[in-house]
Amino acid sequence: MSRLSLTEIIRVGRKVDPVILRALSHDSAKEFRPSLYYHFQVGGKRMRAAMVMLCCAASGGRIQNALNPAAAVEMVHNYSLVMDDMIDRGEIRRGKPTVRREFGDSTSLLIAMFYREVLDDLIQECPRRAVIRKIAVTAMKEIIDGERLDLQFEQAGRDDPFLTAHRIRKPSFQLYLEMIGKKTASLFQAAAEIGAHSAQTGPRIVQALGSFGWKVGLAFQVMDDVLDICGEGTGKQEAKDVVEHKLGNAAILIAMKYLHEKDKAELQGILTSPRVSGRQAAKAKQLVMKTPAELACKQIASEYLQEAKEHLTVLGRSRYAVTLSDFGDHAIKRAF
Amino acid sequence: MSRLSLTEIIRVGRKVDPVILRALSHDSAKEFRPSLYYHFQVGGKRMRAAMVMLCCAASGGRIQNALNPAAAVEMVHNYSLVMDDMIDRGEIRRGKPTVRREFGDSTSLLIAMFYREVLDDLIQECPRRAVIRKIAVTAMKEIIDGERLDLQFEQAGRDDPFLTAHRIRKPSFQLYLEMIGKKTASLFQAAAEIGAHSAQTGPRIVQALGSFGWKVGLAFQVMDDVLDICGEGTGKQEAKDVVEHKLGNAAILIAMKYLHEKDKAELQGILTSPRVSGRQAAKAKQLVMKTPAELACKQIASEYLQEAKEHLTVLGRSRYAVTLSDFGDHAIKRAF
Repeated sequence: MSRLSLTEIIRVGRKVDPVILRALSHDSAKEFRPSLYYHFQVGGKRMRAAMVMLCCAASGGRIQNALNPAAAVEMVHNYSLVMDDMIDRGEIRRGKPTVRREFGDSTSLLIAMFYREVLDDLIQECPRRAVIRKIAVTAMKEIIDGERLDLQFEQAGRDDPFLTAHRIRKPSFQLYLEMIGKKTASLFQAAAEIGAHSAQTGPRIVQALGSFGWKVGLAFQVMDDVLDICGEGTGKQEAKDVVEHKLGNAAILIAMKYLHEKDKAELQGILTSPRVSGRQAAKAKQLVMKTPAELACKQIASEYLQEAKEHLTVLGRSRYAVTLSDFGDHAIKRAF
Repeated sequence: MSRLSLTEIIRVGRKVDPVILRALSHDSAKEFRPSLYYHFQVGGKRMRAAMVMLCCAASGGRIQNALNPAAAVEMVHNYSLVMDDMIDRGEIRRGKPTVRREFGDSTSLLIAMFYREVLDDLIQECPRRAVIRKIAVTAMKEIIDGERLDLQFEQAGRDDPFLTAHRIRKPSFQLYLEMIGKKTASLFQAAAEIGAHSAQTGPRIVQALGSFGWKVGLAFQVMDDVLDICGEGTGKQEAKDVVEHKLGNAAILIAMKYLHEKDKAELQGILTSPRVSGRQAAKAKQLVMKTPAELACKQIASEYLQEAKEHLTVLGRSRYAVTLSDFGDHAIKRAF
């Protein structure tokens, strides 16, 4: 049986690009369009779009019917990314200047707001649109709440009294999981469910694929955290989470458990220092690497992935069980 | 025939408050709720909500059926206000700290994003919801584009190269009207149309009330501009548009036509100075007051109001023709 390559996944996901660009051009001022297109033109692997389309195919539907649903899910994702970069003052994404960096914060805000309205247009073109809308809106609310929690995990770097007063100094791993569940896994789950609905399938498949998506999402985010701290040449700022004072990172949280008092205090000191220098970020990375955190995270991610794959038994001997399983492997390998 | 008092308008508009608070509490984290409620609890006169409900009544519907539609329109408005305060770094609104001032920019962004999702929930509860959704989404896109144009009317104060490169130095009054049409009148039109649809009325009434709303919106914004420069004790920062370097203000634009070269250069100098002091803002106001700009704006607004009222003939001798006419008068008196 032929296996799904990463190139193939990207090729599938990218099918939404013309759909997205067309939707962005509809009802928008001509002068506004280049700014609206920018974020989608600098790259992105459309992983969530691929998830929608593959889940549609796995549910017996035609990929063609999943194009608008996949574009909608990708719009949710990219809307949240542009907003997220404003919150985190992100400078680089996909190896290119972020939208806020390219157009300034104010225009960036308007671009993101416009994405939210275009999301609505895309949903209008979906099969089972009332159901898909409900799933997308629920995921959006989860993402917002996940982002809210993520901010509370920060240890310094913002002076607004409201956030300072609500900081979580010693988060449990359980709370971390709740945060990434909302911030990341909810949209993977939504993508899988929306894909299944696009094939007009029944609740059993929708639910199983949704659970698959949820677990893949958790695995993906844990690996994304590891990559942030331990990875190199990712197209993002190195050890970005450390620079952003984020304790809401699996590798950092786990490292904290292993480090001896002195090292732990040093890592905490870096995360709570008003500005983290490149040298401090490198030191933080080194401290994390002294522990088995990277390995522990990989273990956690592969357990989630294993659990995810168990939900694929609902597909029986369909070749898409293999395809989705491969998709999960690629997701945690973070070749994405 | 008893006339509509301002108190009565506000009483009608405020009927949406419990609907809005209930919608905000649905699906939101308990800790998030006080921040979500804040903006609606500090005040606001729910003028657009009143417009929806009065137009529903004028179209023969029950006010009860317009509650969710009115709450939806008010949600669009307040979503855009919270975002707008982030763009303009607003400190005070309705005499109280803005959401961004109270909770910081990041949380403010999440609050606004959540409003946008709650808007969707409110629309779900509307009669003719597909139509109402389309109107709301279209209005939202217009508001975004109006805001984009408004930014281009600014003469200084932002250093992002994108905006600096796109500044409009000598806007025509026509372009100003296009900007306020999108920024303000589009939502008044949407409110009126949505009100008419809530009564399940036909296209003739929908269109006439929509045109009424559009013209009232233009009149309202022109008067809002005048009030910004010439008013006192408005609950907003005095001459806020000058402080924000905005040439997109009817009073300023018209004053520019009347001022002699030297005064004109001084006003332009203030609008283009990197930071506008309180003294400069007072000077700008004084320059505007030297001209007939205030009077000219009042004239323009009352012409729009007159044109608006002509659309009410569609209601025949209904008492609501009088009610809506009174609503228009209150709107331009800007007792709101």
